[in-house]
Amino acid sequence: MKIHLVTHNKHKFEEYRLLFRNENMEVEWVNTEYVEIQDDDVENVALFSLNALTGKIHEPFMLEDSGLYIKSLKGFPGPYSSYVNRTIGNEGIMDLMKNIRERQAVFVAVIGLRMDGQNYLFRGVTEGKISHEIKGKKGFGFDPIFIPEGSERTFSEMDIEEKNRYSHRMMAFKKLIEFIKI
Amino acid sequence: MKIHLVTHNKHKFEEYRLLFRNENMEVEWVNTEYVEIQDDDVENVALFSLNALTGKIHEPFMLEDSGLYIKSLKGFPGPYSSYVNRTIGNEGIMDLMKNIRERQAVFVAVIGLRMDGQNYLFRGVTEGKISHEIKGKKGFGFDPIFIPEGSERTFSEMDIEEKNRYSHRMMAFKKLIEFIKI
Repeated sequence: MKIHLVTHNKHKFEEYRLLFRNENMEVEWVNTEYVEIQDDDVENVALFSLNALTGKIHEPFMLEDSGLYIKSLKGFPGPYSSYVNRTIGNEGIMDLMKNIRERQAVFVAVIGLRMDGQNYLFRGVTEGKISHEIKGKKGFGFDPIFIPEGSERTFSEMDIEEKNRYSHRMMAFKKLIEFIKI
Repeated sequence: MKIHLVTHNKHKFEEYRLLFRNENMEVEWVNTEYVEIQDDDVENVALFSLNALTGKIHEPFMLEDSGLYIKSLKGFPGPYSSYVNRTIGNEGIMDLMKNIRERQAVFVAVIGLRMDGQNYLFRGVTEGKISHEIKGKKGFGFDPIFIPEGSERTFSEMDIEEKNRYSHRMMAFKKLIEFIKI
């Protein structure tokens, strides 16, 4: 079985290609943008997009919505992570967190899968904290400011294999694979 | 003619009620939430919502999408103003603007009207700047930090009649009224 991955984000596709390869599976990149709704819950965002793409993309297909939820900022930037990243960026998050001691944050990824005419959601969560400075060059998005629990380094200081041991993306992917392999 | 205004925001409805009253027109509040898409352009957000509500709300109906675009923050918070407001709030914007001299910002409102089976958009823009402190108690959202051009006070320091002389909402409303009265 070959799954089509719908994303406009090259980095995201690269991470998934590696994850699928480790499972001896193939993934095909469908590089296109699609409609996402405004909703605080990434599950709802993913579900809406799945339905919007149904009939337009060859099944089975998947997409992924992810967000960084910072506790002391009431969950900001949440599902709007990509917009926030390309406007105020990591520097903006540093400014917002300047005098805040509570650094707790979670990275959430929700994979939406459309297969055999049904929608399925798989959620991955990584607990961690916001670093005090922007660190590392690898990865993308908020990777340079997120330190997963169990490490002292940001996602951007890790190579992709190490990041994949911790990442929300990997957690969601694991559930997807378990489901597919039943 | 009575227009139905779809919004979950009581403050927004109150402002429109006054605007319509000044035109001797009636507006009926449809207090419901609706789907909004993620898009940097408020026009696209409004248009999508109009289509999503068509057939569900009695025509003619209208909705309004608005956003605050801060130049030095690359347009942030833009169309996600309501989310940003209830998470990092005005305090967050102050933190992001702390060491920034360039305070230029625009408030944009887009009214989407559904009438006789057609969609119409009316855009209102108010130029202004971000204040150096949070000021005033009236209004809602980013009103306490936005100073419109031609004034030295924030929207929140003005009563509603004064705000309506400057506001992006009023600018969009004027165009709507001109159109309706043809």
